[in-house]
Amino acid sequence: MIHKLTSEERASQFPQLDGWQAMAGRDAIQRKLRFADFNEAFGFMTRVAIKAQEMDHHPEWFNVYNRVEITLSTHEAGGITERDILMAKFIDSIAKGAQPD
Amino acid sequence: MIHKLTSEERASQFPQLDGWQAMAGRDAIQRKLRFADFNEAFGFMTRVAIKAQEMDHHPEWFNVYNRVEITLSTHEAGGITERDILMAKFIDSIAKGAQPD
Repeated sequence: MIHKLTSEERASQFPQLDGWQAMAGRDAIQRKLRFADFNEAFGFMTRVAIKAQEMDHHPEWFNVYNRVEITLSTHEAGGITERDILMAKFIDSIAKGAQPD
Repeated sequence: MIHKLTSEERASQFPQLDGWQAMAGRDAIQRKLRFADFNEAFGFMTRVAIKAQEMDHHPEWFNVYNRVEITLSTHEAGGITERDILMAKFIDSIAKGAQPD
């Protein structure tokens, strides 16, 4: 059974992430991105989708035109786990051209 | 300049749509869909994305795993236009396997 990250794990992992914020009222992290246009935004989402399927770990996300808002949490653990950290790091690695939103 | 649909246009067009609801407090229509799994949900989204780019008319949407929530409105008209009806009809045509959510 995958476990929610401990305080120590959070303290070591969160500083390695780029632009993610803890959500209020929920054990999840969120990042908001702005791309040049819809083509770039949906291209990014497609790369994340393929990774998500490979990891069997899927984001919650909202998109409108060039904006993407991604929320990560692990349903079966009821909070943030190492799977979310791995997914966040993958997203960070392919989102270099995006702006904060 | 594209115009918001008149009452007469709404009365003739809305009954032709499948599962769309008017949103409270906003001139937009929304449909919530549930697919078999993430592969089907994101496959559906990819078809809509390609159509959206072709039409230069993009949805607002939220996805988590097999669920997709789509909102249509025309930003520059401040409400529902024929572009939204065209997009909704396209979505209906490719969402036959989905369940309401």
